[in-house]
Amino acid sequence: MMDIVIPIYEDFTALDAIGPYEVLSRTGGRVRFVGREAGPVRTDNGMLSVVAEATLEEATAPDIVVVPGGVSTRTVAEDPVWLEWLRTVHATSTWTTSVCTGSLLLGAAGILDGLQATSHWLHLETLRRYGAEPTGRRVVEQGKVITAAGVSAGIDMALTLAARIAGDDAARAIQLGIEYDPQPPFDAGSVEKADPRLVEAIRAAVAEREARSRQRAGV
Amino acid sequence: MMDIVIPIYEDFTALDAIGPYEVLSRTGGRVRFVGREAGPVRTDNGMLSVVAEATLEEATAPDIVVVPGGVSTRTVAEDPVWLEWLRTVHATSTWTTSVCTGSLLLGAAGILDGLQATSHWLHLETLRRYGAEPTGRRVVEQGKVITAAGVSAGIDMALTLAARIAGDDAARAIQLGIEYDPQPPFDAGSVEKADPRLVEAIRAAVAEREARSRQRAGV
Repeated sequence: MMDIVIPIYEDFTALDAIGPYEVLSRTGGRVRFVGREAGPVRTDNGMLSVVAEATLEEATAPDIVVVPGGVSTRTVAEDPVWLEWLRTVHATSTWTTSVCTGSLLLGAAGILDGLQATSHWLHLETLRRYGAEPTGRRVVEQGKVITAAGVSAGIDMALTLAARIAGDDAARAIQLGIEYDPQPPFDAGSVEKADPRLVEAIRAAVAEREARSRQRAGV
Repeated sequence: MMDIVIPIYEDFTALDAIGPYEVLSRTGGRVRFVGREAGPVRTDNGMLSVVAEATLEEATAPDIVVVPGGVSTRTVAEDPVWLEWLRTVHATSTWTTSVCTGSLLLGAAGILDGLQATSHWLHLETLRRYGAEPTGRRVVEQGKVITAAGVSAGIDMALTLAARIAGDDAARAIQLGIEYDPQPPFDAGSVEKADPRLVEAIRAAVAEREARSRQRAGV
Protein backbone atom coordinates (compact mmCIF):
# COMPACT_ATOMS: atom_id res chain seq x y z
CA MET A 1 0.00 0.00 0.00
CA MET A 2 1.38 3.36 -1.04
CA ASP A 3 2.18 5.70 1.84
CA ILE A 4 1.03 9.15 0.74
CA VAL A 5 1.88 12.07 3.00
CA ILE A 6 0.50 15.60 2.89
CA PRO A 7 2.42 17.98 5.18
CA ILE A 8 0.38 20.94 6.43
CA TYR A 9 1.35 24.12 8.26
CA GLU A 10 -0.43 27.17 9.68
CA ASP A 11 -1.99 29.26 6.89
CA PHE A 12 -1.93 26.53 4.26
CA THR A 13 -4.64 26.64 1.57
CA ALA A 14 -7.19 23.90 2.19
CA LEU A 15 -8.11 23.01 -1.39
CA ASP A 16 -4.42 22.64 -2.34
CA ALA A 17 -4.31 19.70 0.05
CA ILE A 18 -7.86 18.33 -0.08
CA GLY A 19 -8.06 18.14 -3.90
CA PRO A 20 -5.13 15.70 -4.18
CA TYR A 21 -6.22 13.91 -0.97
CA GLU A 22 -9.68 13.24 -2.47
CA VAL A 23 -8.13 11.77 -5.64
CA LEU A 24 -5.18 9.89 -4.13
CA SER A 25 -7.22 8.37 -1.27
CA ARG A 26 -9.09 6.50 -4.01
CA THR A 27 -5.97 4.86 -5.49
CA GLY A 28 -5.79 2.21 -2.78
CA GLY A 29 -3.01 4.06 -0.97
CA ARG A 30 -3.09 5.45 2.55
CA VAL A 31 -3.11 9.25 2.87
CA ARG A 32 -1.79 10.89 6.03
CA PHE A 33 -1.81 14.55 6.98
CA VAL A 34 1.25 15.48 9.03
CA GLY A 35 2.48 18.64 10.72
CA ARG A 36 5.30 19.96 12.86
CA GLU A 37 3.03 18.93 15.70
CA ALA A 38 0.06 16.58 15.55
CA GLY A 39 -3.31 18.28 15.96
CA PRO A 40 -5.48 20.90 14.28
CA VAL A 41 -3.77 23.16 11.75
CA ARG A 42 -5.45 26.42 10.76
CA THR A 43 -5.91 27.35 7.10
CA ASP A 44 -4.99 30.64 5.41
CA ASN A 45 -8.27 32.47 6.03
CA GLY A 46 -8.55 31.39 9.67
CA MET A 47 -11.98 29.80 9.08
CA LEU A 48 -11.06 26.12 9.14
CA SER A 49 -8.80 23.62 10.88
CA VAL A 50 -7.66 20.32 9.42
CA VAL A 51 -6.10 17.74 11.71
CA ALA A 52 -2.49 16.64 11.28
CA GLU A 53 -2.64 13.01 12.38
CA ALA A 54 1.10 12.66 12.95
CA THR A 55 4.29 14.68 13.15
CA LEU A 56 6.85 15.19 10.39
CA GLU A 57 9.20 12.92 12.34
CA GLU A 58 6.67 10.10 12.10
CA ALA A 59 6.57 10.26 8.31
CA THR A 60 10.09 10.44 6.94
CA ALA A 61 9.88 7.81 4.19
CA PRO A 62 6.57 8.18 2.29
CA ASP A 63 6.24 6.86 -1.25
CA ILE A 64 4.51 10.09 -2.25
CA VAL A 65 4.63 13.54 -0.73
CA VAL A 66 2.19 16.29 -1.76
CA VAL A 67 3.17 19.75 -0.53
CA PRO A 68 0.30 22.26 -0.52
CA GLY A 69 0.71 26.01 -0.85
CA GLY A 70 -0.38 28.73 1.50
CA VAL A 71 0.08 32.37 2.35
CA SER A 72 2.86 31.55 4.82
CA THR A 73 5.28 29.74 2.53
CA ARG A 74 7.81 32.55 2.96
CA THR A 75 7.96 31.76 6.68
CA VAL A 76 7.96 27.98 6.23
CA ALA A 77 10.71 28.28 3.60
CA GLU A 78 12.97 29.74 6.29
CA ASP A 79 12.32 26.95 8.79
CA PRO A 80 15.25 24.48 8.81
CA VAL A 81 13.02 21.71 10.24
CA TRP A 82 10.70 21.90 7.23
CA LEU A 83 13.55 22.12 4.71
CA GLU A 84 15.43 19.21 6.23
CA TRP A 85 12.23 17.13 6.29
CA LEU A 86 11.52 17.87 2.63
CA ARG A 87 15.08 16.87 1.67
CA THR A 88 14.80 13.68 3.71
CA VAL A 89 11.50 12.54 2.20
CA HIS A 90 12.60 13.50 -1.31
CA ALA A 91 15.72 11.34 -0.96
CA THR A 92 13.63 8.14 -0.88
CA SER A 93 10.26 9.17 -2.34
CA THR A 94 8.83 7.66 -5.49
CA TRP A 95 7.05 10.93 -6.27
CA THR A 96 7.65 14.40 -4.82
CA THR A 97 4.82 16.77 -5.69
CA SER A 98 3.44 20.20 -4.90
CA VAL A 99 0.37 22.32 -5.49
CA CYS A 100 0.34 26.12 -5.86
CA THR A 101 3.05 27.82 -3.77
CA GLY A 102 3.99 24.44 -2.31
CA SER A 103 6.54 24.49 -5.14
CA LEU A 104 8.31 27.38 -3.43
CA LEU A 105 8.92 25.07 -0.47
CA LEU A 106 10.31 22.37 -2.76
CA GLY A 107 12.45 25.10 -4.30
CA ALA A 108 13.70 26.36 -0.95
CA ALA A 109 14.70 22.77 -0.10
CA GLY A 110 16.81 22.66 -3.28
CA ILE A 111 14.59 20.10 -4.99
CA LEU A 112 13.74 22.17 -8.10
CA ASP A 113 17.27 23.28 -9.01
CA GLY A 114 17.63 22.96 -12.78
CA LEU A 115 14.06 21.72 -13.28
CA GLN A 116 11.04 23.19 -15.01
CA ALA A 117 8.29 23.86 -12.49
CA THR A 118 5.06 25.72 -11.89
CA SER A 119 3.27 27.48 -9.03
CA HIS A 120 0.37 29.84 -8.49
CA TRP A 121 0.53 32.35 -11.38
CA LEU A 122 1.25 35.16 -8.91
CA HIS A 123 4.43 33.46 -7.77
CA LEU A 124 5.81 31.86 -10.92
CA GLU A 125 8.80 34.17 -11.15
CA THR A 126 9.78 33.41 -7.54
CA LEU A 127 10.72 29.92 -8.73
CA ARG A 128 13.81 31.39 -10.44
CA ARG A 129 15.21 32.19 -6.99
CA TYR A 130 15.60 28.44 -6.51
CA GLY A 131 17.17 27.66 -9.85
CA ALA A 132 13.91 26.44 -11.38
CA GLU A 133 12.57 27.43 -14.77
CA PRO A 134 8.93 28.63 -14.47
CA THR A 135 6.44 27.33 -17.02
CA GLY A 136 2.82 28.32 -17.55
CA ARG A 137 1.71 24.67 -17.84
CA ARG A 138 -0.88 23.46 -15.33
CA VAL A 139 0.95 20.26 -14.36
CA VAL A 140 4.71 19.94 -14.84
CA GLU A 141 6.33 16.52 -14.59
CA GLN A 142 10.13 16.34 -14.32
CA GLY A 143 11.30 12.87 -13.45
CA LYS A 144 9.78 12.07 -10.07
CA VAL A 145 8.98 15.70 -9.33
CA ILE A 146 5.52 17.00 -10.28
CA THR A 147 4.44 20.58 -9.61
CA ALA A 148 0.93 21.94 -10.15
CA ALA A 149 -0.34 25.49 -10.72
CA GLY A 150 -2.61 27.32 -8.26
CA VAL A 151 -5.02 25.72 -5.76
CA SER A 152 -7.49 23.77 -7.93
CA ALA A 153 -4.69 22.47 -10.21
CA GLY A 154 -3.91 19.90 -7.54
CA ILE A 155 -6.91 17.87 -8.70
CA ASP A 156 -5.53 17.64 -12.24
CA MET A 157 -2.05 16.86 -10.89
CA ALA A 158 -3.40 14.11 -8.65
CA LEU A 159 -5.32 12.49 -11.51
CA THR A 160 -2.10 12.51 -13.56
CA LEU A 161 -0.28 10.93 -10.63
CA ALA A 162 -3.09 8.42 -10.02
CA ALA A 163 -2.66 7.26 -13.61
CA ARG A 164 1.08 6.77 -13.04
CA ILE A 165 0.66 4.73 -9.87
CA ALA A 166 -2.61 2.87 -10.53
CA GLY A 167 -3.07 3.00 -14.31
CA ASP A 168 -5.15 5.08 -16.70
CA ASP A 169 -8.37 3.15 -16.07
CA ALA A 170 -8.07 3.57 -12.31
CA ALA A 171 -7.56 7.31 -12.79
CA ARG A 172 -10.61 7.48 -15.08
CA ALA A 173 -12.66 5.59 -12.46
CA ILE A 174 -11.57 8.11 -9.83
CA GLN A 175 -12.49 11.00 -12.12
CA LEU A 176 -15.95 9.51 -12.55
CA GLY A 177 -16.21 8.75 -8.83
CA ILE A 178 -15.68 12.41 -7.97
CA GLU A 179 -17.75 13.41 -11.02
CA TYR A 180 -14.98 15.66 -12.24
CA ASP A 181 -16.56 17.01 -15.41
CA PRO A 182 -15.81 20.68 -14.75
CA GLN A 183 -18.33 23.27 -15.93
CA PRO A 184 -17.29 26.56 -14.37
CA PRO A 185 -19.89 29.30 -14.99
CA PHE A 186 -17.11 31.63 -16.21
CA ASP A 187 -13.91 31.22 -18.21
CA ALA A 188 -11.57 33.30 -16.07
CA GLY A 189 -9.40 30.59 -14.52
CA SER A 190 -6.03 31.62 -15.96
CA VAL A 191 -4.12 34.84 -16.51
CA GLU A 192 -4.47 34.37 -20.27
CA LYS A 193 -8.26 34.05 -20.08
CA ALA A 194 -9.13 36.57 -17.38
CA ASP A 195 -9.72 40.28 -17.78
CA PRO A 196 -6.47 42.18 -16.98
CA ARG A 197 -8.37 44.33 -14.45
CA LEU A 198 -9.24 41.19 -12.50
CA VAL A 199 -5.65 40.05 -12.63
CA GLU A 200 -4.60 43.29 -10.97
CA ALA A 201 -7.41 43.07 -8.38
CA ILE A 202 -6.15 39.64 -7.33
CA ARG A 203 -2.56 40.83 -7.13
CA ALA A 204 -3.66 43.56 -4.73
CA ALA A 205 -5.84 41.25 -2.59
CA VAL A 206 -3.13 38.64 -2.21
CA ALA A 207 -0.48 41.20 -1.32
CA GLU A 208 -2.78 42.45 1.43
CA ARG A 209 -3.51 38.93 2.71
CA GLU A 210 0.19 38.12 2.82
CA ALA A 211 0.86 41.29 4.77
CA ARG A 212 -1.80 40.26 7.30
CA SER A 213 -0.27 36.79 7.58
CA ARG A 214 3.20 38.22 8.22
CA GLN A 215 1.68 40.53 10.82
CA ARG A 216 -0.01 37.56 12.58
CA ALA A 217 3.28 35.68 12.51
CA GLY A 218 5.03 38.75 13.95
CA VAL A 219 7.40 38.96 11.00
CA MET B 1 -21.02 39.86 6.34
CA MET B 2 -22.69 36.70 5.02
CA ASP B 3 -22.83 33.86 7.53
CA ILE B 4 -22.05 30.70 5.54
CA VAL B 5 -22.41 27.40 7.37
CA ILE B 6 -21.16 23.98 6.27
CA PRO B 7 -22.55 21.18 8.46
CA ILE B 8 -20.35 18.07 8.62
CA TYR B 9 -20.94 14.60 10.01
CA GLU B 10 -18.96 11.37 10.38
CA ASP B 11 -18.13 9.87 6.95
CA PHE B 12 -18.73 13.03 4.96
CA THR B 13 -16.74 13.50 1.75
CA ALA B 14 -14.05 16.12 2.26
CA LEU B 15 -13.96 17.70 -1.21
CA ASP B 16 -17.77 18.17 -1.19
CA ALA B 17 -17.25 20.60 1.68
CA ILE B 18 -13.80 22.04 0.97
CA GLY B 19 -14.49 22.95 -2.68
CA PRO B 20 -17.35 25.34 -1.79
CA TYR B 21 -15.51 26.51 1.34
CA GLU B 22 -12.49 27.54 -0.77
CA VAL B 23 -14.69 29.54 -3.16
CA LEU B 24 -17.17 31.03 -0.67
CA SER B 25 -14.49 32.02 1.86
CA ARG B 26 -13.26 34.43 -0.83
CA THR B 27 -16.59 36.25 -1.21
CA GLY B 28 -16.09 38.33 1.91
CA GLY B 29 -18.42 36.10 3.94
CA ARG B 30 -17.55 34.09 7.03
CA VAL B 31 -17.52 30.31 6.60
CA ARG B 32 -18.11 28.08 9.62
CA PHE B 33 -17.95 24.28 9.83
CA VAL B 34 -20.47 22.95 12.33
CA GLY B 35 -21.33 19.48 13.63
CA ARG B 36 -23.62 17.73 16.09
CA GLU B 37 -20.72 18.25 18.47
CA ALA B 38 -17.82 20.66 18.07
CA GLY B 39 -14.48 18.98 17.38
CA PRO B 40 -12.81 16.77 14.76
CA VAL B 41 -15.12 15.00 12.32
CA ARG B 42 -13.78 12.02 10.39
CA THR B 43 -14.22 11.79 6.60
CA ASP B 44 -15.59 8.85 4.58
CA ASN B 45 -12.30 7.01 4.07
CA GLY B 46 -11.14 7.39 7.67
CA MET B 47 -7.92 9.15 6.61
CA LEU B 48 -8.72 12.73 7.58
CA SER B 49 -10.45 14.81 10.23
CA VAL B 50 -11.82 18.30 9.73
CA VAL B 51 -12.75 20.37 12.76
CA ALA B 52 -16.34 21.45 13.40
CA GLU B 53 -15.85 24.82 15.09
CA ALA B 54 -19.34 24.97 16.57
CA THR B 55 -22.45 22.87 17.12
CA LEU B 56 -25.58 22.84 14.99
CA GLU B 57 -27.37 24.65 17.83
CA GLU B 58 -24.89 27.52 17.56
CA ALA B 59 -25.70 28.09 13.88
CA THR B 60 -29.44 28.09 13.33
CA ALA B 61 -29.81 31.18 11.15
CA PRO B 62 -27.06 31.25 8.52
CA ASP B 63 -27.51 33.21 5.32
CA ILE B 64 -26.14 30.28 3.34
CA VAL B 65 -25.98 26.59 4.17
CA VAL B 66 -23.91 24.15 2.10
CA VAL B 67 -24.67 20.49 2.85
CA PRO B 68 -21.93 18.09 1.73
CA GLY B 69 -22.49 14.45 0.81
CA GLY B 70 -20.94 11.36 2.29
CA VAL B 71 -21.29 7.62 2.52
CA SER B 72 -23.37 7.89 5.68
CA THR B 73 -26.23 10.05 4.39
CA ARG B 74 -28.65 7.16 4.87
CA THR B 75 -27.91 7.25 8.61
CA VAL B 76 -27.94 11.03 8.89
CA ALA B 77 -31.23 11.17 6.96
CA GLU B 78 -32.84 9.20 9.80
CA ASP B 79 -31.56 11.48 12.54
CA PRO B 80 -34.33 13.85 13.69
CA VAL B 81 -31.78 16.33 15.06
CA TRP B 82 -30.23 16.75 11.63
CA LEU B 83 -33.58 16.95 9.83
CA GLU B 84 -34.98 19.49 12.27
CA TRP B 85 -31.82 21.57 11.98
CA LEU B 86 -32.01 21.54 8.18
CA ARG B 87 -35.66 22.65 8.27
CA THR B 88 -34.83 25.39 10.76
CA VAL B 89 -31.95 26.88 8.76
CA HIS B 90 -33.87 26.57 5.49
CA ALA B 91 -36.76 28.56 6.96
CA THR B 92 -34.64 31.72 7.13
CA SER B 93 -31.73 31.06 4.76
CA THR B 94 -31.05 33.18 1.72
CA TRP B 95 -29.59 30.14 -0.06
CA THR B 96 -29.90 26.45 0.81
CA THR B 97 -27.41 24.36 -1.13
CA SER B 98 -25.96 20.87 -1.33
CA VAL B 99 -23.16 18.96 -3.01
CA CYS B 100 -23.29 15.31 -4.07
CA THR B 101 -25.48 13.17 -1.77
CA GLY B 102 -25.98 16.18 0.47
CA SER B 103 -29.13 16.64 -1.64
CA LEU B 104 -30.52 13.43 -0.13
CA LEU B 105 -30.36 15.13 3.26
CA LEU B 106 -32.18 18.18 1.91
CA GLY B 107 -34.68 15.74 0.42
CA ALA B 108 -35.16 13.86 3.69
CA ALA B 109 -35.85 17.19 5.39
CA GLY B 110 -38.63 17.87 2.87
CA ILE B 111 -36.81 20.74 1.19
CA LEU B 112 -36.76 19.31 -2.35
CA ASP B 113 -40.42 18.30 -2.62
CA GLY B 114 -41.65 19.34 -6.06
CA LEU B 115 -38.26 20.71 -7.14
CA GLN B 116 -35.77 19.65 -9.77
CA ALA B 117 -32.52 18.59 -8.14
CA THR B 118 -29.29 16.71 -8.67
CA SER B 119 -26.92 14.49 -6.68
CA HIS B 120 -24.02 12.13 -7.29
CA TRP B 121 -24.90 10.21 -10.47
CA LEU B 122 -25.09 6.97 -8.47
CA HIS B 123 -27.88 8.36 -6.31
CA LEU B 124 -29.92 10.50 -8.71
CA GLU B 125 -32.93 8.19 -8.65
CA THR B 126 -33.04 8.26 -4.84
CA LEU B 127 -34.15 11.88 -5.12
CA ARG B 128 -37.59 10.70 -6.30
CA ARG B 129 -38.16 9.23 -2.82
CA TYR B 130 -38.33 12.82 -1.57
CA GLY B 131 -40.63 14.16 -4.27
CA ALA B 132 -37.78 15.71 -6.24
CA GLU B 133 -37.29 15.41 -9.97
CA PRO B 134 -33.72 14.27 -10.76
CA THR B 135 -31.85 16.06 -13.53
CA GLY B 136 -28.48 15.29 -15.06
CA ARG B 137 -27.39 18.93 -14.92
CA ARG B 138 -24.27 19.71 -12.90
CA VAL B 139 -25.74 22.63 -10.95
CA VAL B 140 -29.50 22.94 -10.47
CA GLU B 141 -30.95 26.22 -9.23
CA GLN B 142 -34.57 26.29 -8.04
CA GLY B 143 -35.43 29.51 -6.29
CA LYS B 144 -33.15 29.69 -3.27
CA VAL B 145 -32.27 25.98 -3.43
CA ILE B 146 -29.16 24.96 -5.39
CA THR B 147 -28.03 21.35 -5.66
CA ALA B 148 -24.79 20.19 -7.26
CA ALA B 149 -23.76 16.84 -8.75
CA GLY B 150 -21.01 14.62 -7.29
CA VAL B 151 -18.06 15.78 -5.16
CA SER B 152 -16.11 18.16 -7.46
CA ALA B 153 -19.34 19.81 -8.73
CA GLY B 154 -19.41 21.80 -5.49
CA ILE B 155 -16.73 24.08 -6.93
CA ASP B 156 -18.89 24.95 -9.95
CA MET B 157 -21.94 25.38 -7.70
CA ALA B 158 -20.04 27.69 -5.36
CA LEU B 159 -18.81 29.87 -8.23
CA THR B 160 -22.41 30.17 -9.44
CA LEU B 161 -23.46 31.12 -5.92
CA ALA B 162 -20.53 33.53 -5.53
CA ALA B 163 -21.76 35.35 -8.63
CA ARG B 164 -25.27 35.64 -7.12
CA ILE B 165 -24.07 37.06 -3.81
CA ALA B 166 -21.00 39.07 -4.85
CA GLY B 167 -21.44 39.65 -8.58
CA ASP B 168 -20.00 38.11 -11.75
CA ASP B 169 -16.70 39.97 -11.54
CA ALA B 170 -16.13 38.84 -7.95
CA ALA B 171 -16.82 35.25 -9.00
CA ARG B 172 -14.39 35.58 -11.92
CA ALA B 173 -11.74 36.98 -9.56
CA ILE B 174 -12.24 34.01 -7.26
CA GLN B 175 -11.95 31.61 -10.20
CA LEU B 176 -8.65 33.24 -11.14
CA GLY B 177 -7.52 33.27 -7.51
CA ILE B 178 -7.92 29.51 -7.26
CA GLU B 179 -6.62 29.15 -10.84
CA TYR B 180 -9.66 27.09 -11.77
CA ASP B 181 -8.89 26.42 -15.43
CA PRO B 182 -9.55 22.68 -15.32
CA GLN B 183 -7.43 20.41 -17.50
CA PRO B 184 -8.15 16.85 -16.40
CA PRO B 185 -5.84 14.34 -18.11
CA PHE B 186 -8.86 12.21 -19.08
CA ASP B 187 -12.43 12.92 -20.14
CA ALA B 188 -14.27 10.43 -17.95
CA GLY B 189 -15.95 12.74 -15.46
CA SER B 190 -19.58 11.93 -16.23
CA VAL B 191 -21.63 8.83 -16.92
CA GLU B 192 -22.16 9.99 -20.51
CA LYS B 193 -18.43 10.38 -21.15
CA ALA B 194 -16.98 7.41 -19.24
CA ASP B 195 -16.59 3.84 -20.46
CA PRO B 196 -19.61 1.75 -19.31
CA ARG B 197 -17.22 -0.80 -17.72
CA LEU B 198 -15.85 1.95 -15.49
CA VAL B 199 -19.36 3.02 -14.56
CA GLU B 200 -20.05 -0.51 -13.33
CA ALA B 201 -16.72 -0.72 -11.47
CA ILE B 202 -17.62 2.43 -9.54
CA ARG B 203 -21.09 1.14 -8.74
CA ALA B 204 -19.52 -1.98 -7.20
CA ALA B 205 -16.86 -0.07 -5.25
CA VAL B 206 -19.34 2.37 -3.77
CA ALA B 207 -21.77 -0.39 -2.78
CA GLU B 208 -18.92 -2.09 -0.92
CA ARG B 209 -17.85 1.15 0.79
CA GLU B 210 -21.40 1.85 1.90
CA ALA B 211 -21.69 -1.65 3.33
CA ARG B 212 -18.51 -1.07 5.33
CA SER B 213 -19.84 2.25 6.59
CA ARG B 214 -23.10 0.66 7.74
CA GLN B 215 -21.07 -2.07 9.44
CA ARG B 216 -18.96 0.53 11.30
CA ALA B 217 -22.15 2.31 12.34
CA GLY B 218 -23.58 -0.99 13.55
CA VAL B 219 -26.58 -0.70 11.23
